[in-house]
Parts: sequence; C-alpha cells; structure tokens
Amino acid sequence: MNMVDIRAAQAAYRDELVAAGLLIPTGVDGLYGRSGVFEEVVERFDALVTRWGGADGAEAMRFPPALNRQYFEESDYLKSFPHLAGTIHSFGGDEKAHRTLLRRLEEGQDWTEDQVATDVVMTPAACYPVYPTVARRGALPDGGRLIDVFSYCFRHEPSIDPARMQMFRMREYIRIGTPEQVVEFRELWLERGRGMMASLEMPLDIDVANDPFFGRAGAMLSSSQREQKLKFELLIPVTSTEQPTACLSFNYHQDHFGHIWDIRTADGGVAHTACVGFGMERVALALFRHHGFDPAGWPAAVRKVLWG
Amino acid sequence: MNMVDIRAAQAAYRDELVAAGLLIPTGVDGLYGRSGVFEEVVERFDALVTRWGGADGAEAMRFPPALNRQYFEESDYLKSFPHLAGTIHSFGGDEKAHRTLLRRLEEGQDWTEDQVATDVVMTPAACYPVYPTVARRGALPDGGRLIDVFSYCFRHEPSIDPARMQMFRMREYIRIGTPEQVVEFRELWLERGRGMMASLEMPLDIDVANDPFFGRAGAMLSSSQREQKLKFELLIPVTSTEQPTACLSFNYHQDHFGHIWDIRTADGGVAHTACVGFGMERVALALFRHHGFDPAGWPAAVRKVLWG
Repeated sequence: MNMVDIRAAQAAYRDELVAAGLLIPTGVDGLYGRSGVFEEVVERFDALVTRWGGADGAEAMRFPPALNRQYFEESDYLKSFPHLAGTIHSFGGDEKAHRTLLRRLEEGQDWTEDQVATDVVMTPAACYPVYPTVARRGALPDGGRLIDVFSYCFRHEPSIDPARMQMFRMREYIRIGTPEQVVEFRELWLERGRGMMASLEMPLDIDVANDPFFGRAGAMLSSSQREQKLKFELLIPVTSTEQPTACLSFNYHQDHFGHIWDIRTADGGVAHTACVGFGMERVALALFRHHGFDPAGWPAAVRKVLWG
Repeated sequence: MNMVDIRAAQAAYRDELVAAGLLIPTGVDGLYGRSGVFEEVVERFDALVTRWGGADGAEAMRFPPALNRQYFEESDYLKSFPHLAGTIHSFGGDEKAHRTLLRRLEEGQDWTEDQVATDVVMTPAACYPVYPTVARRGALPDGGRLIDVFSYCFRHEPSIDPARMQMFRMREYIRIGTPEQVVEFRELWLERGRGMMASLEMPLDIDVANDPFFGRAGAMLSSSQREQKLKFELLIPVTSTEQPTACLSFNYHQDHFGHIWDIRTADGGVAHTACVGFGMERVALALFRHHGFDPAGWPAAVRKVLWG
C-alpha cells in the first residue's frame, strides 16, 4: 500500500468503529469518547497486565494526566519532542480583561492569546511523574524499585488513524536500579509481552524502534537509539500490515532520567531506568480488528484469558 | 474556626494523607498522585454508584479529559468561569523557533509565550462532552436519554485543601428530556445520594448551593441560582465542620444546554437537562477522614457495602 491507501484504510477503520458505536466522535481528529463495550475491553486487558506483572510486587502509583511544569522542564522532553507537548494555560485577568475575552470570542477573534501558562502541563507518557517522585525518597534500596502506573497521556499529533489518538491511556511498569536489574527487567517483559499478546491470538512482531525526535538533530538521535537497541516495540497490524501499530513498547533509558533527577542506587551509582508501556486503546483496537466488534463472539480461548 | 484555622486544618489533613502515603505530592498545590489503597477506594465507590444507578439502563460514555475547543466555546463556560478553565497549547514552530525556545528555557525566561492554542481544552466537568454528542443524534426518544460518564476534570484553583484538587475525577449520571423527566431524576438522586452516603456511615447534610461564578455579574448569577434552587450539594465534613466539603452535587440546568446545542424532545420542545455528580477524590477523602487511613479497619457494615 502507498500512503494514500494507508490513510484510506485508517479512515475506513475509524468510520467502522464510529458506526459500531465503539468510538464516539468529538469533532477533533484523535479525540474520541468510548462506549461501555470499548471500556470493558480496556479494563479486562488492564487486569491481564496485572496478572502477568502482579507477582513482582510493584508499587502502584496513580497520577492525574497533568504534570508539574518544573519537572517537565527538567525532563529534556522539550529538547526531543517539543511538537508533541501540551501546556495548560488559564485566564488570570480582571473583569475588564474578561469583557475583552468575551468580545473576542463573540467576534470570532483569537481569545486564547492572553491565556497564561499554569504550573502544569499535559502528561506526555505515564512514567514521567515517577522519576522525580522516586528521586525525592533518597537512594534506592538494594533491589531497586519497581513502579506500576496508569495514566491518560496527551500528544499533539492530530491524525485520522484511530490508533494515533491525541489523548490515550498508557499502563506501565517502570524499573529503577542498576544497569543489570534494569536490562533483566526489559528482557523479562519482552518475553512476557510476546506471551501475553500471543494468548490473545494476535499476529505480532517485535522490532527495534525509535522515538519521533524533532528536527534534523532528532534524526541522529533516532538513529543512535536504534543502533543501541534502546527501544523495542510489539507491533500488531491494525489498519494495515505494511504499517503495523506499536501496541507495547520496551524502553531502556540508560541513565538519562537517573542523571536528570540524581537518582542513586544503594551503592551510590547513577540509577538506570527502563519501562514497559501498554497502549490501552491500541490493544483494544487490535482486538476489535482481529476478533470483531462484539466481544461475545471472540474466540473462546481469548475470552477465557480476558474474562476468566 | 476562622479562615486561618480552617487553612491550618486543611494543610494538616493534607500532610497526614501524604505521610500515610495515600497522596503523593508533585510539588504543585492541588496536583497529587494516589496510592493503590486510595485508588481501590475510588474503584469500590465507583462500583457502588453503578449498583445504585445501574438498573436505570444508562448509556455509558467515557471521554478523555479534554474537550473539543469549539464545543467549549459554545458552552458559555467562559462567560461564567473563565478563571477555572484550562486551554491546551502546543509548539508549532520550526527548528529555529525550537532553538529560541530552548535558549529561553536554559536562561530561565518564559518559553511558553509562543505556545499556540490547540483545538482542545481541559474538560471542566464530566458532562460537557455529552450535550453536543447527544445533540448530533437528532431529537430525543420519548423517554429522553440517560447517560453515564466518568472523567478527570481540570479546574485552575491551586489550593492547600486536599479536597480542592486541580485535577480530580467526577462520575456523573446525566438526564436529558422534558422538564418533568429531568426534575424527577434529580429528586430521585437527592434521595439516593442521601441513602448511599448514609450506608457508608458518613455524617452528611444536603443544602442549596451555587456555582463559583466569576466577577460582580457572577454574584447575581449565584444568587439567582440559589433562589431558584437549581443546585444542591451533599456536604460532608472533611477538613472542618464549619466548611464541609461538597462530595455530591445535584444540578438542574433548565434548558441552558438544550438551548445552546438545540437538543429537542420527541415533541419538539427544547430539552431540559440535569446531572448528579460524584466527586471521587472527595468521597475517598471523606471516608479516610471518618473511618481511618486503613480500609481494613473500617466498620464492618461499611466494608460490606463497598467490598461486598
């Protein structure tokens, strides 16, 4: 398929999902409501992730979908992905400024230019609030730490592809410790991820990947990330086989976050980190694509895995 | 208690919650992570709401915590609550603009002023995406509609009061129909809300209330809203008895939203709407306040209601 065909396939799947009532359009590409059926699939998959990871004793943390702006500024996200970030702005004016705002709105002018940045930004990935939180606790215990998060995330990339939403949910396990602990964790989850998705009878492939770094300097970062095999993705065809969708990702950050927030291992070294991320909407979309829009008709083995 | 004492009590409860690990500070007032225990209480209360409301056959819709900006502009929210709204902005520049952004960040200058408003804003209340969605479906069926939503909401009101978060979750049932259908719904939920919270052994009071309208014109709107008894709140003491916390709210919007989005009843009249909202974090905070920080030690009757 060429790009025109791929876009057409994306639009067609989106339209099917809307017609079936699974996605509710909101008038903005990449921003959808979901039906109760869609949500139940997300909840059942979330419970499946807990079953595969639960015995490891991860500490659950649940952050809202916004982040302290200071942490965000420290995180280097703006160096790598300025185009995807969302900052939250608000009105700080008096009644006169309010009248001006309403007049502009009434006259169809831009009323947003006087909005001022607040102290919070949209969470770009579920693990971002974790690193400064763990850093505040002091040096890691001997075994390092294992954290379990789940959050809505925002990325400003309007798309007709239903698998590329502007607001989507990500479950993650995050390992923080020595390089050995962290690399072992990622290897473990590469195997588990394959097993988990195979149990859902999904056609899948795992491949080296890169993040969408911004600009020309970003191209070099992408290529270095691939060469060092820092990122893997579990890919499932959703709208096309030529461009399968990354449903899980397995990321080794080396000492990037440990260095920024000065996270130290028990023996005083800079902590390394890794995470496995589950794209909740993408997994649901893959299940609907391969098993149909009505979970009651899914293969018995898949139903048993999800509903027990 | 005077305001100084009330603030001290709010700060003290927040500090206790943080020390107990139930809330995770993020460095921003009103923005907290939550522990697994906190989340389990929220989940159990969510299930309780479903048990009380489930037999009514509401249609579940789950929207992400952001809203089409066009819908938001149409909603009149900016007339009434400009100070609480959050707009999402992003970077739209090229590599040169990116270098400028990074230089400003590096030098501690304001890097946010060139951020441009996107097509989405923060959801201010869980029901906002529902009205335009229902309007798109055409005239209501004879019985009207009943919708079930759950969403993170944003309000820009940084506070040390743990019961006044900037990002919090709201479950809602929304009734859309004739004035009679809608008023009956609100009466039903005023009774149910009282029964549900009494079953959790919460000290409670239900009272007429008003929304925090902006400015001097807002004071008149507040007073009119109270005179017409359009809003009730179920109040529970959390940080003080003098200023109990609104944990549930019962709102009759008359034809406000029906008029804006031209929602019509089966016989062609402008639809009226009402909603009951459950403040999930506030209910959890009330339970922790009155029954202690460890749910294992809560009264057996309360545990039975929540855990079955």
